[in-house]
Amino acid sequence: MQILDTPEAMRSLSESWRREGRLIGFVPTMGALHEGHLSLVRMAREECDKLFASIFVNPLQFEARDDLERYERPFDRDSRLLRETGCDALFAPSVEAMYGAPASGEGRLVQTFVEVKEFGEILEGAVRPGHFRGVATIVAKLFNIGVPHRAYFGEKDYQQLKVIEQMVRDLFFDVEIVPGPTVREKDGLALSSRNARLSPGERKAAAVLFRALRKGATLVESGERDAARLVEAMRAVCETQPLVEVQYVAVVDARTLEPLTELVGGRPARALIAASVGGIHLIDNITL
Amino acid sequence: MQILDTPEAMRSLSESWRREGRLIGFVPTMGALHEGHLSLVRMAREECDKLFASIFVNPLQFEARDDLERYERPFDRDSRLLRETGCDALFAPSVEAMYGAPASGEGRLVQTFVEVKEFGEILEGAVRPGHFRGVATIVAKLFNIGVPHRAYFGEKDYQQLKVIEQMVRDLFFDVEIVPGPTVREKDGLALSSRNARLSPGERKAAAVLFRALRKGATLVESGERDAARLVEAMRAVCETQPLVEVQYVAVVDARTLEPLTELVGGRPARALIAASVGGIHLIDNITL
Repeated sequence: MQILDTPEAMRSLSESWRREGRLIGFVPTMGALHEGHLSLVRMAREECDKLFASIFVNPLQFEARDDLERYERPFDRDSRLLRETGCDALFAPSVEAMYGAPASGEGRLVQTFVEVKEFGEILEGAVRPGHFRGVATIVAKLFNIGVPHRAYFGEKDYQQLKVIEQMVRDLFFDVEIVPGPTVREKDGLALSSRNARLSPGERKAAAVLFRALRKGATLVESGERDAARLVEAMRAVCETQPLVEVQYVAVVDARTLEPLTELVGGRPARALIAASVGGIHLIDNITL
Repeated sequence: MQILDTPEAMRSLSESWRREGRLIGFVPTMGALHEGHLSLVRMAREECDKLFASIFVNPLQFEARDDLERYERPFDRDSRLLRETGCDALFAPSVEAMYGAPASGEGRLVQTFVEVKEFGEILEGAVRPGHFRGVATIVAKLFNIGVPHRAYFGEKDYQQLKVIEQMVRDLFFDVEIVPGPTVREKDGLALSSRNARLSPGERKAAAVLFRALRKGATLVESGERDAARLVEAMRAVCETQPLVEVQYVAVVDARTLEPLTELVGGRPARALIAASVGGIHLIDNITL
Protein backbone atom coordinates (compact mmCIF):
# COMPACT_ATOMS: atom_id res chain seq x y z
CA MET A 1 0.00 0.00 0.00
CA GLN A 2 1.37 3.39 -0.99
CA ILE A 3 1.12 6.19 1.57
CA LEU A 4 0.81 9.64 0.01
CA ASP A 5 0.84 12.91 1.90
CA THR A 6 0.53 15.55 -0.81
CA PRO A 7 -2.45 16.33 -3.07
CA GLU A 8 -0.08 16.31 -6.06
CA ALA A 9 1.12 12.75 -5.39
CA MET A 10 -2.44 11.50 -4.80
CA ARG A 11 -3.71 13.12 -8.00
CA SER A 12 -0.87 11.75 -10.03
CA LEU A 13 -1.49 8.20 -8.74
CA SER A 14 -5.19 8.50 -9.53
CA GLU A 15 -4.39 9.81 -13.02
CA SER A 16 -2.14 6.84 -13.69
CA TRP A 17 -4.96 4.47 -12.62
CA ARG A 18 -7.42 6.29 -14.89
CA ARG A 19 -5.04 6.04 -17.82
CA GLU A 20 -5.00 2.27 -17.29
CA GLY A 21 -8.82 2.30 -17.37
CA ARG A 22 -9.21 1.22 -13.72
CA LEU A 23 -12.39 1.74 -11.73
CA ILE A 24 -11.31 3.74 -8.66
CA GLY A 25 -12.95 3.43 -5.25
CA PHE A 26 -12.50 5.81 -2.32
CA VAL A 27 -13.22 5.52 1.40
CA PRO A 28 -12.76 8.85 3.22
CA THR A 29 -12.09 8.57 6.97
CA MET A 30 -10.81 10.57 9.91
CA GLY A 31 -8.81 7.55 11.07
CA ALA A 32 -9.41 5.86 14.46
CA LEU A 33 -10.73 3.06 12.28
CA HIS A 34 -13.24 0.47 13.43
CA GLU A 35 -15.21 -2.30 11.81
CA GLY A 36 -17.64 0.27 10.36
CA HIS A 37 -14.87 1.79 8.24
CA LEU A 38 -13.38 -1.59 7.39
CA SER A 39 -16.72 -2.91 6.15
CA LEU A 40 -16.78 0.03 3.70
CA VAL A 41 -13.23 -0.78 2.62
CA ARG A 42 -14.19 -4.43 2.03
CA MET A 43 -17.25 -3.43 0.00
CA ALA A 44 -15.13 -1.07 -2.10
CA ARG A 45 -12.43 -3.74 -2.51
CA GLU A 46 -15.03 -6.10 -4.01
CA GLU A 47 -16.43 -3.51 -6.41
CA CYS A 48 -13.40 -1.54 -7.62
CA ASP A 49 -10.12 -2.19 -9.44
CA LYS A 50 -8.12 0.29 -7.42
CA LEU A 51 -8.93 1.57 -3.96
CA PHE A 52 -7.68 4.42 -1.85
CA ALA A 53 -8.67 5.58 1.61
CA SER A 54 -7.96 8.91 3.22
CA ILE A 55 -7.17 9.72 6.82
CA PHE A 56 -7.67 13.38 7.60
CA VAL A 57 -8.98 14.80 10.85
CA ASN A 58 -10.73 17.78 9.33
CA PRO A 59 -10.57 20.80 11.65
CA LEU A 60 -13.35 22.55 9.72
CA GLN A 61 -15.98 20.03 10.79
CA PHE A 62 -15.27 20.26 14.51
CA GLU A 63 -17.09 23.03 16.28
CA ALA A 64 -15.27 22.41 19.57
CA ARG A 65 -11.51 22.67 19.67
CA ASP A 66 -11.53 20.26 22.58
CA ASP A 67 -13.29 17.55 20.54
CA LEU A 68 -10.77 18.06 17.71
CA GLU A 69 -7.79 17.79 20.02
CA ARG A 70 -9.15 14.70 21.77
CA TYR A 71 -9.85 12.93 18.46
CA GLU A 72 -7.72 9.76 18.42
CA ARG A 73 -4.98 9.52 15.79
CA PRO A 74 -3.56 5.95 15.91
CA PHE A 75 -1.90 6.28 12.52
CA ASP A 76 0.26 3.13 12.51
CA ARG A 77 -2.64 0.91 13.54
CA ASP A 78 -4.97 2.58 11.00
CA SER A 79 -2.56 2.22 8.11
CA ARG A 80 -1.90 -1.42 9.00
CA LEU A 81 -5.66 -2.14 9.04
CA LEU A 82 -6.13 -0.46 5.66
CA ARG A 83 -3.24 -2.39 4.17
CA GLU A 84 -4.56 -5.69 5.55
CA THR A 85 -8.05 -4.92 4.20
CA GLY A 86 -6.67 -4.43 0.71
CA CYS A 87 -6.29 -0.69 0.12
CA ASP A 88 -3.92 0.17 -2.70
CA ALA A 89 -3.18 3.61 -1.35
CA LEU A 90 -3.65 5.78 1.71
CA PHE A 91 -3.90 9.54 1.34
CA ALA A 92 -2.96 11.21 4.62
CA PRO A 93 -2.28 14.91 4.02
CA SER A 94 -1.44 17.61 6.56
CA VAL A 95 -3.88 20.39 7.49
CA GLU A 96 -1.56 22.81 5.67
CA ALA A 97 -1.72 20.76 2.48
CA MET A 98 -5.52 20.76 2.50
CA TYR A 99 -6.19 24.32 3.67
CA GLY A 100 -3.09 26.31 2.79
CA ALA A 101 -0.46 27.41 5.22
CA PRO A 102 -1.69 30.18 7.50
CA ALA A 103 1.93 30.73 8.53
CA SER A 104 2.89 32.25 5.16
CA GLY A 105 2.47 36.03 5.02
CA GLU A 106 -0.79 36.18 3.11
CA GLY A 107 -2.25 32.85 4.24
CA ARG A 108 -5.55 32.19 5.95
CA LEU A 109 -6.84 28.84 7.19
CA VAL A 110 -9.67 28.57 4.69
CA GLN A 111 -11.27 30.76 2.11
CA THR A 112 -13.55 28.66 -0.10
CA PHE A 113 -16.45 26.76 1.45
CA VAL A 114 -19.01 24.39 0.03
CA GLU A 115 -22.33 24.75 1.77
CA VAL A 116 -25.34 22.48 1.38
CA LYS A 117 -28.21 24.67 2.51
CA GLU A 118 -31.21 23.26 4.38
CA PHE A 119 -29.75 19.74 4.74
CA GLY A 120 -26.75 21.30 6.43
CA GLU A 121 -28.74 23.41 8.89
CA ILE A 122 -31.22 20.99 10.44
CA LEU A 123 -30.80 18.17 12.98
CA GLU A 124 -27.02 17.59 13.34
CA GLY A 125 -26.45 20.88 11.52
CA ALA A 126 -28.47 22.72 14.18
CA VAL A 127 -26.65 20.97 17.05
CA ARG A 128 -23.23 21.46 15.39
CA PRO A 129 -23.30 24.72 13.38
CA GLY A 130 -20.80 24.70 10.52
CA HIS A 131 -20.25 20.94 10.79
CA PHE A 132 -21.68 20.00 7.39
CA ARG A 133 -20.04 22.98 5.72
CA GLY A 134 -16.77 21.46 6.94
CA VAL A 135 -17.76 18.02 5.71
CA ALA A 136 -18.91 19.20 2.26
CA THR A 137 -15.81 21.38 1.81
CA ILE A 138 -13.32 18.64 2.64
CA VAL A 139 -15.15 16.01 0.57
CA ALA A 140 -15.19 18.37 -2.44
CA LYS A 141 -11.43 18.83 -2.05
CA LEU A 142 -10.84 15.08 -1.70
CA PHE A 143 -13.00 14.30 -4.75
CA ASN A 144 -11.08 16.82 -6.84
CA ILE A 145 -7.73 15.45 -5.69
CA GLY A 146 -8.38 11.69 -5.92
CA VAL A 147 -11.06 11.76 -8.67
CA PRO A 148 -12.68 8.44 -7.67
CA HIS A 149 -15.45 6.75 -9.63
CA ARG A 150 -17.13 5.59 -6.43
CA ALA A 151 -16.99 6.86 -2.87
CA TYR A 152 -18.25 4.94 0.17
CA PHE A 153 -20.04 6.52 3.13
CA GLY A 154 -21.56 4.80 6.15
CA GLU A 155 -25.30 5.02 6.81
CA LYS A 156 -24.52 5.58 10.48
CA ASP A 157 -23.90 9.21 9.53
CA TYR A 158 -27.16 9.32 7.62
CA GLN A 159 -27.46 13.09 7.32
CA GLN A 160 -23.85 13.34 6.17
CA LEU A 161 -24.65 10.77 3.48
CA LYS A 162 -27.60 12.90 2.30
CA VAL A 163 -25.50 16.08 2.36
CA ILE A 164 -22.83 14.45 0.21
CA GLU A 165 -25.37 12.97 -2.22
CA GLN A 166 -26.97 16.40 -2.58
CA MET A 167 -23.61 18.10 -3.14
CA VAL A 168 -22.66 15.56 -5.78
CA ARG A 169 -25.97 16.07 -7.59
CA ASP A 170 -25.95 19.87 -7.34
CA LEU A 171 -22.30 20.41 -8.28
CA PHE A 172 -22.24 17.59 -10.86
CA PHE A 173 -19.37 15.66 -9.34
CA ASP A 174 -18.81 12.58 -11.48
CA VAL A 175 -18.71 10.27 -8.45
CA GLU A 176 -21.16 7.56 -7.47
CA ILE A 177 -21.95 7.66 -3.75
CA VAL A 178 -22.29 4.17 -2.27
CA PRO A 179 -23.86 3.85 1.19
CA GLY A 180 -22.72 1.10 3.55
CA PRO A 181 -24.85 -0.35 6.38
CA THR A 182 -24.18 0.58 10.00
CA VAL A 183 -22.03 -1.90 11.91
CA ARG A 184 -23.12 -2.50 15.52
CA GLU A 185 -21.86 -3.95 18.78
CA LYS A 186 -23.71 -7.01 20.13
CA ASP A 187 -26.01 -4.80 22.20
CA GLY A 188 -26.87 -2.67 19.16
CA LEU A 189 -24.62 0.35 19.77
CA ALA A 190 -23.49 1.73 16.42
CA LEU A 191 -19.70 1.66 16.04
CA SER A 192 -18.11 5.08 16.39
CA SER A 193 -14.58 6.24 17.09
CA ARG A 194 -16.08 8.23 19.96
CA ASN A 195 -17.37 5.12 21.78
CA ALA A 196 -13.87 4.54 23.16
CA ARG A 197 -14.25 7.68 25.27
CA LEU A 198 -17.30 6.37 27.15
CA SER A 199 -16.89 5.11 30.73
CA PRO A 200 -18.11 1.52 31.31
CA GLY A 201 -21.42 2.83 32.73
CA GLU A 202 -21.90 5.29 29.84
CA ARG A 203 -21.00 2.60 27.34
CA LYS A 204 -23.74 0.38 28.74
CA ALA A 205 -26.29 3.22 28.81
CA ALA A 206 -25.46 4.22 25.20
CA ALA A 207 -27.06 1.05 23.85
CA VAL A 208 -30.42 2.65 24.61
CA LEU A 209 -30.17 4.70 21.39
CA PHE A 210 -30.59 1.66 19.20
CA ARG A 211 -33.21 0.16 21.51
CA ALA A 212 -35.20 3.38 21.08
CA LEU A 213 -34.85 3.25 17.28
CA ARG A 214 -35.94 -0.38 17.24
CA LYS A 215 -38.93 0.54 19.37
CA GLY A 216 -39.89 3.08 16.68
CA ALA A 217 -39.44 0.53 13.89
CA THR A 218 -41.50 -2.06 15.78
CA LEU A 219 -44.35 0.40 16.34
CA VAL A 220 -44.39 1.19 12.62
CA GLU A 221 -44.49 -2.52 11.81
CA SER A 222 -47.52 -2.87 14.05
CA GLY A 223 -49.32 -0.04 12.28
CA GLU A 224 -48.37 3.25 13.97
CA ARG A 225 -48.33 6.11 11.45
CA ASP A 226 -48.26 9.19 13.64
CA ALA A 227 -44.76 10.72 13.73
CA ALA A 228 -45.26 12.62 17.00
CA ARG A 229 -46.31 9.43 18.80
CA LEU A 230 -43.28 7.59 17.37
CA VAL A 231 -40.92 10.33 18.52
CA GLU A 232 -42.52 10.31 21.96
CA ALA A 233 -42.17 6.55 22.28
CA MET A 234 -38.49 6.63 21.24
CA ARG A 235 -37.79 9.49 23.67
CA ALA A 236 -39.44 7.53 26.45
CA VAL A 237 -37.09 4.60 25.85
CA CYS A 238 -34.06 6.92 26.05
CA GLU A 239 -35.32 8.52 29.24
CA THR A 240 -34.96 5.21 31.06
CA GLN A 241 -31.20 5.97 31.04
CA PRO A 242 -30.31 9.01 33.14
CA LEU A 243 -26.77 9.10 31.65
CA VAL A 244 -28.25 9.71 28.20
CA GLU A 245 -29.20 13.29 27.38
CA VAL A 246 -31.29 13.28 24.20
CA GLN A 247 -30.51 16.08 21.72
CA TYR A 248 -33.10 15.21 19.13
CA VAL A 249 -35.33 12.39 17.99
CA ALA A 250 -36.79 12.93 14.55
CA VAL A 251 -38.94 11.11 12.03
CA VAL A 252 -38.10 12.42 8.57
CA ASP A 253 -38.51 11.79 4.86
CA ALA A 254 -35.59 9.44 4.09
CA ARG A 255 -34.61 11.39 0.96
CA THR A 256 -35.30 15.03 1.80
CA LEU A 257 -34.89 14.86 5.63
CA GLU A 258 -38.09 16.88 5.93
CA PRO A 259 -39.88 16.22 9.22
CA LEU A 260 -42.97 14.07 8.74
CA THR A 261 -46.21 14.34 10.63
CA GLU A 262 -47.49 11.06 9.29
CA LEU A 263 -45.95 8.02 7.61
CA VAL A 264 -47.55 7.36 4.24
CA GLY A 265 -47.03 4.55 1.75
CA GLY A 266 -44.48 5.24 -0.97
CA ARG A 267 -42.63 7.86 1.07
CA PRO A 268 -39.67 6.17 2.76
CA ALA A 269 -39.13 7.36 6.31
CA ARG A 270 -36.16 7.33 8.64
CA ALA A 271 -35.81 7.89 12.37
CA LEU A 272 -32.75 9.81 13.53
CA ILE A 273 -31.51 10.19 17.06
CA ALA A 274 -28.72 12.13 18.74
CA ALA A 275 -27.69 12.20 22.36
CA SER A 276 -24.93 13.35 24.63
CA VAL A 277 -23.61 10.55 26.84
CA GLY A 278 -21.13 11.77 29.43
CA GLY A 279 -20.46 14.74 27.16
CA ILE A 280 -19.79 12.46 24.17
CA HIS A 281 -21.96 13.14 21.12
CA LEU A 282 -23.53 9.97 19.69
CA ILE A 283 -25.90 9.54 16.73
CA ASP A 284 -27.79 6.68 15.15
CA ASN A 285 -30.69 6.07 12.76
CA ILE A 286 -32.97 3.40 11.37
CA THR A 287 -35.31 2.80 8.43
CA LEU A 288 -38.97 2.97 9.40
CA MET B 1 -19.96 23.13 -33.87
CA GLN B 2 -22.07 20.87 -31.67
CA ILE B 3 -24.71 22.51 -29.49
CA LEU B 4 -25.41 20.61 -26.27
CA ASP B 5 -28.10 21.46 -23.80
CA THR B 6 -27.76 18.77 -21.12
CA PRO B 7 -24.94 18.24 -18.61
CA GLU B 8 -24.89 14.54 -19.57
CA ALA B 9 -24.26 15.29 -23.26
CA MET B 10 -21.56 17.85 -22.44
CA ARG B 11 -19.80 15.49 -20.04
CA SER B 12 -19.89 12.65 -22.50
CA LEU B 13 -18.38 14.81 -25.26
CA SER B 14 -15.63 15.98 -22.91
CA GLU B 15 -14.94 12.37 -21.87
CA SER B 16 -14.55 11.33 -25.48
CA TRP B 17 -12.06 14.18 -26.03
CA ARG B 18 -10.11 13.14 -22.93
CA ARG B 19 -9.97 9.54 -24.10
CA GLU B 20 -8.37 10.80 -27.32
CA GLY B 21 -5.80 12.67 -25.22
CA ARG B 22 -6.97 16.14 -26.33
CA LEU B 23 -6.18 19.31 -24.39
CA ILE B 24 -9.59 20.86 -23.65
CA GLY B 25 -10.21 24.61 -23.41
CA PHE B 26 -13.31 26.29 -21.99
CA VAL B 27 -14.70 29.82 -22.26
CA PRO B 28 -17.69 30.38 -19.93
CA THR B 29 -20.03 33.20 -20.96
CA MET B 30 -23.51 34.55 -20.32
CA GLY B 31 -23.95 35.17 -24.05
CA ALA B 32 -24.54 38.64 -25.52
CA LEU B 33 -21.04 38.15 -26.89
CA HIS B 34 -18.69 40.94 -27.81
CA GLU B 35 -15.08 41.21 -28.87
CA GLY B 36 -13.98 40.69 -25.24
CA HIS B 37 -15.45 37.18 -25.25
CA LEU B 38 -14.26 36.46 -28.76
CA SER B 39 -10.68 37.42 -27.92
CA LEU B 40 -10.78 34.78 -25.16
CA VAL B 41 -12.16 32.24 -27.63
CA ARG B 42 -9.35 33.05 -30.09
CA MET B 43 -6.71 32.70 -27.38
CA ALA B 44 -8.18 29.35 -26.31
CA ARG B 45 -8.39 28.23 -29.96
CA GLU B 46 -4.64 28.81 -30.34
CA GLU B 47 -3.72 26.95 -27.17
CA CYS B 48 -6.09 23.96 -27.02
CA ASP B 49 -6.97 20.92 -29.14
CA LYS B 50 -10.65 21.03 -28.38
CA LEU B 51 -12.64 24.04 -27.27
CA PHE B 52 -16.07 24.54 -25.81
CA ALA B 53 -17.87 27.67 -24.70
CA SER B 54 -20.92 27.91 -22.48
CA ILE B 55 -23.82 30.32 -22.65
CA PHE B 56 -25.77 30.42 -19.43
CA VAL B 57 -27.39 33.48 -17.89
CA ASN B 58 -26.90 32.44 -14.28
CA PRO B 59 -29.82 33.62 -12.13
CA LEU B 60 -27.81 33.05 -8.95
CA GLN B 61 -25.34 35.82 -9.74
CA PHE B 62 -27.95 38.51 -10.35
CA GLU B 63 -29.12 40.28 -7.23
CA ALA B 64 -31.80 42.25 -9.11
CA ARG B 65 -34.52 40.33 -10.94
CA ASP B 66 -34.86 43.30 -13.27
CA ASP B 67 -31.20 43.10 -14.34
CA LEU B 68 -31.59 39.36 -14.96
CA GLU B 69 -34.69 39.81 -17.10
CA ARG B 70 -33.19 42.64 -19.11
CA TYR B 71 -30.03 40.67 -19.82
CA GLU B 72 -29.81 40.25 -23.62
CA ARG B 73 -30.07 36.69 -25.01
CA PRO B 74 -29.28 36.85 -28.77
CA PHE B 75 -28.70 33.12 -29.01
CA ASP B 76 -28.53 32.70 -32.80
CA ARG B 77 -26.05 35.52 -33.20
CA ASP B 78 -23.95 34.25 -30.28
CA SER B 79 -23.79 30.70 -31.55
CA ARG B 80 -22.88 31.89 -35.05
CA LEU B 81 -20.03 34.00 -33.59
CA LEU B 82 -18.72 31.07 -31.55
CA ARG B 83 -18.85 28.78 -34.58
CA GLU B 84 -17.05 31.33 -36.76
CA THR B 85 -14.38 31.83 -34.08
CA GLY B 86 -13.64 28.11 -34.03
CA CYS B 87 -15.48 26.60 -31.05
CA ASP B 88 -15.96 22.85 -31.31
CA ALA B 89 -18.94 22.83 -28.98
CA LEU B 90 -21.38 25.15 -27.27
CA PHE B 91 -22.92 24.13 -23.97
CA ALA B 92 -26.19 26.01 -23.45
CA PRO B 93 -28.20 24.37 -20.67
CA SER B 94 -31.52 25.45 -19.16
CA VAL B 95 -31.81 26.85 -15.64
CA GLU B 96 -33.59 23.61 -14.67
CA ALA B 97 -30.71 21.50 -15.95
CA MET B 98 -28.19 23.45 -13.87
CA TYR B 99 -30.17 24.00 -10.67
CA GLY B 100 -32.79 21.24 -10.61
CA ALA B 101 -36.43 21.71 -11.40
CA PRO B 102 -38.26 23.62 -8.68
CA ALA B 103 -41.52 22.57 -10.35
CA SER B 104 -41.14 18.95 -9.19
CA GLY B 105 -42.78 18.28 -5.81
CA GLU B 106 -39.64 18.30 -3.67
CA GLY B 107 -37.54 20.66 -5.76
CA ARG B 108 -35.88 23.87 -4.70
CA LEU B 109 -33.98 26.29 -6.92
CA VAL B 110 -30.58 25.65 -5.39
CA GLN B 111 -29.25 23.84 -2.43
CA THR B 112 -25.44 23.64 -2.68
CA PHE B 113 -23.37 26.82 -2.84
CA VAL B 114 -19.68 27.49 -3.27
CA GLU B 115 -18.59 30.52 -1.36
CA VAL B 116 -15.22 32.25 -1.56
CA LYS B 117 -15.03 34.17 1.70
CA GLU B 118 -13.33 37.58 1.95
CA PHE B 119 -12.72 37.89 -1.82
CA GLY B 120 -16.43 37.43 -2.33
CA GLU B 121 -17.53 40.03 0.22
CA ILE B 122 -15.47 43.10 -0.62
CA LEU B 123 -15.71 45.64 -3.50
CA GLU B 124 -18.15 44.13 -6.06
CA GLY B 125 -19.20 41.60 -3.43
CA ALA B 126 -20.24 44.44 -1.10
CA VAL B 127 -22.13 46.29 -3.87
CA ARG B 128 -23.75 43.04 -5.12
CA PRO B 129 -24.27 40.69 -2.14
CA GLY B 130 -24.35 37.04 -3.21
CA HIS B 131 -22.96 37.82 -6.66
CA PHE B 132 -19.67 35.93 -6.29
CA ARG B 133 -21.38 33.04 -4.52
CA GLY B 134 -23.44 32.73 -7.69
CA VAL B 135 -20.35 32.97 -9.88
CA ALA B 136 -18.31 30.43 -7.88
CA THR B 137 -21.24 27.99 -7.70
CA ILE B 138 -21.96 28.01 -11.44
CA VAL B 139 -18.29 27.81 -12.39
CA ALA B 140 -17.82 24.80 -10.06
CA LYS B 141 -20.78 23.11 -11.77
CA LEU B 142 -19.44 23.92 -15.25
CA PHE B 143 -15.94 22.67 -14.39
CA ASN B 144 -17.37 19.38 -13.09
CA ILE B 145 -19.54 18.94 -16.18
CA GLY B 146 -17.08 19.90 -18.93
CA VAL B 147 -13.83 18.98 -17.10
CA PRO B 148 -11.61 21.36 -19.10
CA HIS B 149 -7.83 21.50 -18.78
CA ARG B 150 -7.86 25.28 -19.21
CA ALA B 151 -10.54 27.90 -18.62
CA TYR B 152 -10.38 31.49 -19.87
CA PHE B 153 -11.59 34.51 -17.92
CA GLY B 154 -11.38 38.19 -18.86
CA GLU B 155 -9.34 40.59 -16.73
CA LYS B 156 -12.15 43.12 -17.10
CA ASP B 157 -13.89 41.21 -14.30
CA TYR B 158 -10.73 41.27 -12.23
CA GLN B 159 -12.26 40.35 -8.89
CA GLN B 160 -14.18 37.49 -10.52
CA LEU B 161 -10.87 36.22 -11.93
CA LYS B 162 -9.33 36.28 -8.43
CA VAL B 163 -12.39 34.57 -6.91
CA ILE B 164 -12.17 31.76 -9.47
CA GLU B 165 -8.40 31.38 -9.06
CA GLN B 166 -8.88 31.13 -5.30
CA MET B 167 -11.68 28.57 -5.63
CA VAL B 168 -9.59 26.45 -7.98
CA ARG B 169 -6.66 26.54 -5.56
CA ASP B 170 -8.73 25.88 -2.43
CA LEU B 171 -10.93 23.11 -3.85
CA PHE B 172 -8.13 21.56 -5.94
CA PHE B 173 -9.89 21.79 -9.28
CA ASP B 174 -7.54 20.39 -11.90
CA VAL B 175 -8.08 23.38 -14.21
CA GLU B 176 -5.61 26.04 -15.27
CA ILE B 177 -7.16 29.52 -15.15
CA VAL B 178 -5.96 31.70 -18.04
CA PRO B 179 -6.65 35.45 -17.85
CA GLY B 180 -7.31 37.44 -21.02
CA PRO B 181 -6.68 41.19 -21.40
CA THR B 182 -9.57 43.65 -21.40
CA VAL B 183 -10.78 44.69 -24.84
CA ARG B 184 -11.73 48.37 -25.16
CA GLU B 185 -13.60 50.77 -27.41
CA LYS B 186 -11.55 53.49 -29.12
CA ASP B 187 -12.29 55.92 -26.26
CA GLY B 188 -11.14 53.35 -23.69
CA LEU B 189 -14.51 52.06 -22.46
CA ALA B 190 -14.14 48.37 -21.53
CA LEU B 191 -16.40 46.16 -23.62
CA SER B 192 -19.40 44.86 -21.66
CA SER B 193 -22.72 43.38 -22.68
CA ARG B 194 -24.30 46.09 -20.54
CA ASN B 195 -22.85 48.96 -22.63
CA ALA B 196 -25.65 48.43 -25.18
CA ARG B 197 -28.14 49.69 -22.59
CA LEU B 198 -26.47 53.10 -22.24
CA SER B 199 -28.06 56.14 -23.91
CA PRO B 200 -25.73 58.04 -26.29
CA GLY B 201 -24.99 60.61 -23.57
CA GLU B 202 -24.35 57.95 -20.95
CA ARG B 203 -22.19 56.00 -23.38
CA LYS B 204 -19.99 59.04 -23.91
CA ALA B 205 -19.80 59.78 -20.18
CA ALA B 206 -18.89 56.14 -19.38
CA ALA B 207 -15.47 56.54 -21.00
CA VAL B 208 -14.45 58.55 -17.94
CA LEU B 209 -13.90 55.29 -15.99
CA PHE B 210 -10.89 54.35 -18.06
CA ARG B 211 -9.64 57.95 -18.14
CA ALA B 212 -9.71 57.89 -14.33
CA LEU B 213 -7.80 54.59 -14.21
CA ARG B 214 -5.20 55.90 -16.63
CA LYS B 215 -4.82 59.01 -14.49
CA GLY B 216 -4.02 56.68 -11.57
CA ALA B 217 -1.50 54.70 -13.61
CA THR B 218 0.15 57.92 -14.87
CA LEU B 219 0.50 59.29 -11.35
CA VAL B 220 2.16 56.04 -10.24
CA GLU B 221 4.55 56.25 -13.19
CA SER B 222 5.50 59.75 -12.09
CA GLY B 223 6.24 58.57 -8.56
CA GLU B 224 3.01 58.76 -6.53
CA ARG B 225 2.94 55.99 -3.88
CA ASP B 226 0.11 57.11 -1.60
CA ALA B 227 -3.03 55.07 -2.23
CA ALA B 228 -5.45 57.62 -0.74
CA ARG B 229 -4.12 60.35 -3.05
CA LEU B 230 -4.41 58.01 -6.04
CA VAL B 231 -8.01 57.16 -5.15
CA GLU B 232 -8.82 60.84 -4.70
CA ALA B 233 -7.31 61.75 -8.07
CA MET B 234 -9.24 59.00 -9.87
CA ARG B 235 -12.49 60.00 -8.16
CA ALA B 236 -11.91 63.61 -9.18
CA VAL B 237 -11.66 62.55 -12.84
CA CYS B 238 -14.97 60.66 -12.58
CA GLU B 239 -16.69 63.60 -10.92
CA THR B 240 -16.23 65.66 -14.07
CA GLN B 241 -19.12 63.56 -15.47
CA PRO B 242 -22.41 64.17 -13.66
CA LEU B 243 -24.00 61.10 -15.34
CA VAL B 244 -21.44 58.85 -13.64
CA GLU B 245 -22.17 57.86 -10.04
CA VAL B 246 -19.03 56.29 -8.56
CA GLN B 247 -19.63 53.21 -6.37
CA TYR B 248 -16.05 52.58 -5.40
CA VAL B 249 -12.49 53.41 -6.43
CA ALA B 250 -9.92 51.16 -4.78
CA VAL B 251 -6.18 50.58 -4.87
CA VAL B 252 -5.52 46.99 -3.83
CA ASP B 253 -2.91 44.24 -3.73
CA ALA B 254 -3.24 42.64 -7.17
CA ARG B 255 -3.19 39.10 -5.73
CA THR B 256 -5.04 39.34 -2.41
CA LEU B 257 -7.29 42.36 -3.20
CA GLU B 258 -6.35 43.79 0.17
CA PRO B 259 -6.62 47.60 0.22
CA LEU B 260 -3.21 49.26 0.15
CA THR B 261 -2.21 52.42 1.92
CA GLU B 262 1.04 52.70 0.03
CA LEU B 263 2.46 51.19 -3.13
CA VAL B 264 5.71 49.35 -2.45
CA GLY B 265 8.15 47.66 -4.79
CA GLY B 266 7.58 43.93 -5.31
CA ARG B 267 3.90 44.08 -4.32
CA PRO B 268 1.86 44.33 -7.52
CA ALA B 269 -1.03 46.75 -7.22
CA ARG B 270 -4.28 47.16 -9.13
CA ALA B 271 -6.83 49.97 -9.27
CA LEU B 272 -10.48 48.93 -9.45
CA ILE B 273 -13.42 51.16 -10.21
CA ALA B 274 -17.20 50.69 -10.29
CA ALA B 275 -19.90 53.17 -11.21
CA SER B 276 -23.56 53.38 -11.99
CA VAL B 277 -24.21 55.15 -15.29
CA GLY B 278 -27.91 55.76 -15.92
CA GLY B 279 -28.62 52.86 -13.55
CA ILE B 280 -26.26 50.54 -15.47
CA HIS B 281 -23.51 48.98 -13.38
CA LEU B 282 -20.06 49.30 -15.01
CA ILE B 283 -16.67 48.14 -13.75
CA ASP B 284 -13.09 48.44 -14.92
CA ASN B 285 -9.53 48.05 -13.60
CA ILE B 286 -5.91 48.66 -14.44
CA THR B 287 -2.43 47.55 -13.34
CA LEU B 288 -0.62 50.21 -11.34
